[in-house]
Amino acid sequence: MAKKQWGGRFAGSTDALMERLGESVSFDSRLALWDIRASRAHARMLGVRGIISPEDSRAILRGLDAIEKEVKAGKVAWDVSLEDVHTNIEAMLIARIGNAGKKLHTARSRNDQIATDVRLWLRDQIDDLLRKLRALRQALVALAEQYFHVILPGFTHLQHAQPVLFAHHLMAYHEMFSRDQERMDSCFARVNRMPLGAAALAGTPYPIDRNYVARLLGYPAVTENSIDSVSDRDTLIEFCSAAAITMMHLSRFCEELIIWATPEFQFIELPDAFCTGSSIMPQKKNPDVAELIRGKTGRVYGHLVSLLTLLKGLPLSYNRDLQEDKEPLFDCVETLRSCLRIFTALLPKLNVLQQNMTKAAEQGYTTATDLADYLTAKGVPFRTAHEIVGRIVAYGIKHGKALHEMTLEELQTFSKAITADARTCVTIEHSVRSRAARGGTAPQTVKKAINNAWKQLQKKKKSHAAAKQSVRSR
Amino acid sequence: MAKKQWGGRFAGSTDALMERLGESVSFDSRLALWDIRASRAHARMLGVRGIISPEDSRAILRGLDAIEKEVKAGKVAWDVSLEDVHTNIEAMLIARIGNAGKKLHTARSRNDQIATDVRLWLRDQIDDLLRKLRALRQALVALAEQYFHVILPGFTHLQHAQPVLFAHHLMAYHEMFSRDQERMDSCFARVNRMPLGAAALAGTPYPIDRNYVARLLGYPAVTENSIDSVSDRDTLIEFCSAAAITMMHLSRFCEELIIWATPEFQFIELPDAFCTGSSIMPQKKNPDVAELIRGKTGRVYGHLVSLLTLLKGLPLSYNRDLQEDKEPLFDCVETLRSCLRIFTALLPKLNVLQQNMTKAAEQGYTTATDLADYLTAKGVPFRTAHEIVGRIVAYGIKHGKALHEMTLEELQTFSKAITADARTCVTIEHSVRSRAARGGTAPQTVKKAINNAWKQLQKKKKSHAAAKQSVRSR
Amino acid sequence: MAKKQWGGRFAGSTDALMERLGESVSFDSRLALWDIRASRAHARMLGVRGIISPEDSRAILRGLDAIEKEVKAGKVAWDVSLEDVHTNIEAMLIARIGNAGKKLHTARSRNDQIATDVRLWLRDQIDDLLRKLRALRQALVALAEQYFHVILPGFTHLQHAQPVLFAHHLMAYHEMFSRDQERMDSCFARVNRMPLGAAALAGTPYPIDRNYVARLLGYPAVTENSIDSVSDRDTLIEFCSAAAITMMHLSRFCEELIIWATPEFQFIELPDAFCTGSSIMPQKKNPDVAELIRGKTGRVYGHLVSLLTLLKGLPLSYNRDLQEDKEPLFDCVETLRSCLRIFTALLPKLNVLQQNMTKAAEQGYTTATDLADYLTAKGVPFRTAHEIVGRIVAYGIKHGKALHEMTLEELQTFSKAITADARTCVTIEHSVRSRAARGGTAPQTVKKAINNAWKQLQKKKKSHAAAKQSVRSR
Amino acid sequence: MAKKQWGGRFAGSTDALMERLGESVSFDSRLALWDIRASRAHARMLGVRGIISPEDSRAILRGLDAIEKEVKAGKVAWDVSLEDVHTNIEAMLIARIGNAGKKLHTARSRNDQIATDVRLWLRDQIDDLLRKLRALRQALVALAEQYFHVILPGFTHLQHAQPVLFAHHLMAYHEMFSRDQERMDSCFARVNRMPLGAAALAGTPYPIDRNYVARLLGYPAVTENSIDSVSDRDTLIEFCSAAAITMMHLSRFCEELIIWATPEFQFIELPDAFCTGSSIMPQKKNPDVAELIRGKTGRVYGHLVSLLTLLKGLPLSYNRDLQEDKEPLFDCVETLRSCLRIFTALLPKLNVLQQNMTKAAEQGYTTATDLADYLTAKGVPFRTAHEIVGRIVAYGIKHGKALHEMTLEELQTFSKAITADARTCVTIEHSVRSRAARGGTAPQTVKKAINNAWKQLQKKKKSHAAAKQSVRSR
Repeated sequence: MAKKQWGGRFAGSTDALMERLGESVSFDSRLALWDIRASRAHARMLGVRGIISPEDSRAILRGLDAIEKEVKAGKVAWDVSLEDVHTNIEAMLIARIGNAGKKLHTARSRNDQIATDVRLWLRDQIDDLLRKLRALRQALVALAEQYFHVILPGFTHLQHAQPVLFAHHLMAYHEMFSRDQERMDSCFARVNRMPLGAAALAGTPYPIDRNYVARLLGYPAVTENSIDSVSDRDTLIEFCSAAAITMMHLSRFCEELIIWATPEFQFIELPDAFCTGSSIMPQKKNPDVAELIRGKTGRVYGHLVSLLTLLKGLPLSYNRDLQEDKEPLFDCVETLRSCLRIFTALLPKLNVLQQNMTKAAEQGYTTATDLADYLTAKGVPFRTAHEIVGRIVAYGIKHGKALHEMTLEELQTFSKAITADARTCVTIEHSVRSRAARGGTAPQTVKKAINNAWKQLQKKKKSHAAAKQSVRSR
Repeated sequence: MAKKQWGGRFAGSTDALMERLGESVSFDSRLALWDIRASRAHARMLGVRGIISPEDSRAILRGLDAIEKEVKAGKVAWDVSLEDVHTNIEAMLIARIGNAGKKLHTARSRNDQIATDVRLWLRDQIDDLLRKLRALRQALVALAEQYFHVILPGFTHLQHAQPVLFAHHLMAYHEMFSRDQERMDSCFARVNRMPLGAAALAGTPYPIDRNYVARLLGYPAVTENSIDSVSDRDTLIEFCSAAAITMMHLSRFCEELIIWATPEFQFIELPDAFCTGSSIMPQKKNPDVAELIRGKTGRVYGHLVSLLTLLKGLPLSYNRDLQEDKEPLFDCVETLRSCLRIFTALLPKLNVLQQNMTKAAEQGYTTATDLADYLTAKGVPFRTAHEIVGRIVAYGIKHGKALHEMTLEELQTFSKAITADARTCVTIEHSVRSRAARGGTAPQTVKKAINNAWKQLQKKKKSHAAAKQSVRSR
Repeated sequence: MAKKQWGGRFAGSTDALMERLGESVSFDSRLALWDIRASRAHARMLGVRGIISPEDSRAILRGLDAIEKEVKAGKVAWDVSLEDVHTNIEAMLIARIGNAGKKLHTARSRNDQIATDVRLWLRDQIDDLLRKLRALRQALVALAEQYFHVILPGFTHLQHAQPVLFAHHLMAYHEMFSRDQERMDSCFARVNRMPLGAAALAGTPYPIDRNYVARLLGYPAVTENSIDSVSDRDTLIEFCSAAAITMMHLSRFCEELIIWATPEFQFIELPDAFCTGSSIMPQKKNPDVAELIRGKTGRVYGHLVSLLTLLKGLPLSYNRDLQEDKEPLFDCVETLRSCLRIFTALLPKLNVLQQNMTKAAEQGYTTATDLADYLTAKGVPFRTAHEIVGRIVAYGIKHGKALHEMTLEELQTFSKAITADARTCVTIEHSVRSRAARGGTAPQTVKKAINNAWKQLQKKKKSHAAAKQSVRSR
Repeated sequence: MAKKQWGGRFAGSTDALMERLGESVSFDSRLALWDIRASRAHARMLGVRGIISPEDSRAILRGLDAIEKEVKAGKVAWDVSLEDVHTNIEAMLIARIGNAGKKLHTARSRNDQIATDVRLWLRDQIDDLLRKLRALRQALVALAEQYFHVILPGFTHLQHAQPVLFAHHLMAYHEMFSRDQERMDSCFARVNRMPLGAAALAGTPYPIDRNYVARLLGYPAVTENSIDSVSDRDTLIEFCSAAAITMMHLSRFCEELIIWATPEFQFIELPDAFCTGSSIMPQKKNPDVAELIRGKTGRVYGHLVSLLTLLKGLPLSYNRDLQEDKEPLFDCVETLRSCLRIFTALLPKLNVLQQNMTKAAEQGYTTATDLADYLTAKGVPFRTAHEIVGRIVAYGIKHGKALHEMTLEELQTFSKAITADARTCVTIEHSVRSRAARGGTAPQTVKKAINNAWKQLQKKKKSHAAAKQSVRSR
């Protein structure tokens, strides 16, 4: 068993069960490269500020470089008895460069070190997730363009409501993922502050230069209070909450894909490459990808609850409970990443069964509202018009006739305000075309929305880079 | 039983159980004033755009004014058989002004109406909560100034770690609530978009002017997609998530107050006015306020889970499930508001038992790190220094001696690097004073943090007002 | 403002905000009748054991009777400044009978009193919910009998899998609700223990007789440890967890009803009395009842999370946080009760569109497994048979032919093992009939399951009554 | 890439991303031994019923034996492209014994197979957890005996309430873990039903004998409905809920240990072997084990939420979402197991600082209730007595005198009913001794509780074995 960093005052050695319960290197080793990066900046500052000698500083940097190579090459065997990734790396450093290695931990503590590592890592992950969200939005807008003229029934209560463009439906999801991107951006800004220098909880007596380290690590700001710095896990919760909302959006889309792929709907066909069959039923082709993503929503919700529970009622500052913050976070990131990636890959391969969509759009009296609006335009108060059309629909259901299949005479038995032009207004094309106010489903409106989206997707690349440089002001 | 808005095509009447399960006016009547406000803007626009006649528009506005007065006077008896607040108000309007009232619902649906009402209401609530967060931060900074020179033991693992200023500890909470304010601000920006005009889900064929309505209602932006507009509940989840984090912060503070108020700690005494006694034990004075707030954390966490569950896997667009979004949101707002308010009222009345804090700060070898740093400054590698001091502490515990009670000779048996000046470096005042890097607990550093906080608290008032006007750009 | 029960040692009076935050009578007044019932048993015991005089005991009983009548008549105006239902009732008692009333609280505390009240109340609620679960099961079995011969496609992955009896599908839900009943029964047994006598936390020096009180209140057992008695809320969590599972079952059924009621599926029609329409779309008939129940699932999940969060990390014994246990519990009970009730009322009124179900069952190659099994019976290894039929299905999809529409020659091009009898084996009737092993969908098997269910539903009535008397043995 | 079990009808091959998202063998391989066990019973039955030849049956059994050995030896390299543990094992079997191996899957599906495997595995885990719960209870009772005469202050609101035996406090936890055991037992009974034979969802046309397989696998009962059998995950949720409650109990105990180990309380000292130090503060000895367990509570809560979310609104029967059921369950089991184990190991090594406990019990007017009860016994109504003592306590706090330090004269200024014997009644020993009613803290009562516990712990071993054999009756 390796020697503990903190063994001085201890008489007994650590219980084996405790060692297993307490170790974190089995999951925090994924932070190794970020830990090294942070240590490198710290060592450089220690040297520059004369806290350690320039020689020691250089020796540490060389040592860290060598260890980084080994980590990248997958050659490191992590030692569980050394508890965590930080102690493992420090031990490797000391083994490699001797006494100088023992000086790296000057003016810092594992408390501020881990807080720094996680933020460094999460910053990179959010960057990657923002790219993936953008790719998903691009796939959505491209799909909307590809099937621009397809009409399907818009649903409320999973009942046919009004005809809408399939492109409009897709652009609804584009809006959702745009908001997700905004939320991730907001979260990024709060992640992007450096806690290093808080030491154990009270700061350090060494003449450190936190701003210098922050610049080396690309942080636009440092945290303002050392006690808060080591006990704060807000951004992890905020990230998981944003991830939960994105998963929720994906789960809604997946639910629709699953319903649309039923033999009853047949609005879409999923590509073989994203489906599986049954071990017993030879005819089955299952929408697995959509089901798995929908299922993984629970996973991310659960992690959010874990973190909230973890922090509830925890006194300041660092408590060992906080070690439990990492696994939920890591799994949230991985789950969201893989779901975004596969969903984006799936979208362009959807087989959209346009004719079935259109046929369905014509069923279920989807243009009844148009008829009511027609009556209103003729001076009938809306509430009255609504009632008249309600009775026409009841008549239609009873006699098996769609609105456009009724004769003018039939229609006129319900209201004298109906004239010949009512017949055009109940077609789905007319219905869609008429909803031209901003945000509506009319082709020209949706076209504008698509063009705007492309513009935003261009702009986004710049603005996010800008956000990274922006200095925190509060 | 009142007539339903949508009765036209229905043969049977609504089941009594269904009516009770489905009604929402028992809780959404709190939106009445915001509903009227939205209706007023809508009616004005309908008139301006010639969708209804100027006379009808004016009649509606007069009717709404009268109803608003009745609502404010608490004179309205809400009719459960009319389902919701919107239908109740519309029915009152029709009863009052006749046919013109039936025209108010032209070019809108309850789907976009409720989405608009909730955003209007929530915007006002967030505004109020931001004020309450600011008041709490002010109370914290004032308290930090009041007890500026008090030292208490900083804790990690609820063990004495290093001495810190009580003011520094308080400013850690100031940081947390500052972040909460940032998050609420972010959320506000996303709430502040107007969905009205989405109608049922597809937009409307009437020549409405959404931007005009938005201006009337003070919305800097309108939503971009009608389907999304009626099915989106993101901001509610985001709000509840932000509220959950704030409650978590409060729960941590409350946990500390409860521990500090024990006879064993006696760091503080809570004012009688915020405590209760026992029905059976005459000596009891219980920290009820802190316990209740800590307990209410669960409530807000639970509401967040409710909303996430609600939305999971819900197909577009509006589904009746969404009616369940309001009670959790309402209760989150009320809970957060009352907790912030009472906590802010409590803070200035805390009786801080300074001497007990200081005495505790001297116990538990809180300056052991300073001694290790002292050794490091003398050239001992940090890891070695850590071990030496560990052994000194073990010796101290065994012989019942604090660090400052040991003689120079005793200390030197552990390391020859220790000289006379070591004695000063182990006082708590020296320890605190030495941690002067940014974010640390040294008095001059904390003073700067306090001054910064006051500046931010001034600035905040302006910047938030600015946020309200800012146009959405994405 | 009324005088507090515990005012003796307090100098200041309670802050108005605190009073509002801390009061519980606005929600715990619903426990009034149970509180009186518990007080009555306590008073009787106090008299019998000579702890108070027989006259005082009788005076208290008379006083409680009078108050009970007022509560039942809805005449009581609860005083918020008296905090909770217990203190309100005690104050009324003292007002009514004077000094004797002050003796009721001898040998008890609000801590054991509230624990007792909640268990008494919850016991009655579970009893009622068990009746409602039984009624739902009866409705299910009756529906299964009514539509016994209807075949629909059994789904996996929401794709047609194999034909099953609609009755079999319904009986799957019967199984779920049977387990729910088991869980509620288990929970009932743990609720059914009396904590009264624990007093504040340590027991009482008075010579009370807890068993006597337990007998009066119908509790088969008393709790074994006074500290645990006042701090335990396990059964509330267990109840909410059981309620959450039942709501989950209902949500699955509701999801199916919603999908089945789409124009694409048309497997069922929901009765007008359980649907609503749209304020704007005259043709709409929405499956509101199913959506509302599905939505309310989130509510119950959220309450469970609230309670779990509440109790996490709470030191023994009673803490004021525990006051927050009641609202989630109350709402869980009410939500579950109303959902069970309305769902049970809905079931017999479902219009099952049998022909559509049967037609669907014939689509989607639902009998492909039967053909594979047929081949296996002819000696083809199952894995090979599965592959052959997979190719036949691919051929069918390509040429638009169902299995029963293919000629023998066509089938034989895929396997020589296929002979004329294969044509019968691919009918849905044959498929259903063949699955006759226990638990399968064959009519004779399902008939047996239905008969068993009726028997269980009879037996249940007895066994639950028995459970109530059973003495706790652990 | 390996060939899929279900490839027949598929034209394209599986996308690489999909393969990674969909595979489960990376976590479900832990079910391998239970999968083999279930397959063995299935194969034997197939042979006995003549569904496959006796030779094939024997070949399969031999093959499974060989694979089992390899699994146990850790020699198996799981193939991710084969999706799950079931397909991996089947592929190994076919590779080993050829065509006979292809017959194993006759009359079953992965849907009923996985449901069976998980129940088999969970049954063994619950068995193990029940043993661990019993061991924990034993450790508690032993500790209660060891420190039988130690008095500490009983707390409510974390304020001193009344003196109690430390043994009584420990026995409160014994009660909690006893209930946990009951709940696990209840859950076990519902896990202990065999779903095998449900096949894909509808049952199977083969003349299988489910009862025979159940007997071979030690299941006292089989599930009653095939559709329910493949879509039910109730017991997993129920298990996680029971686990969450147990973790909550542990979190409460851990919270107390953490508070008790502070320098302010010093009620206990934790053994070095279960603590860690600080990388920077040489004096630190942190109660890590208690913090880690408290932290892991969030983990289990989160998993429960994951599962509930997963199942919400899922239509029948099997959906691929259900694959997400395993990781939360596995981690719940492992977390609970390791927490129970280490906590049980920790208990006997606690250093209980008896004198500090006793000294604290004498502080904070813990016997004020006794004085009130004394007055009541002298005929003062309880409410009045409570007020008098409240004033005495206020006087004591003001003058820094404990109750037993006041002279008779001082006491009598508050009430003439006080005589010399009042001085004895305010000692903590008298207070504890007097609470002798069942469940109270008097030594003789606690002794009885301890003896009862030992008896239960004996009995338990038998009754649980019995439960395993008990046939399901509902």
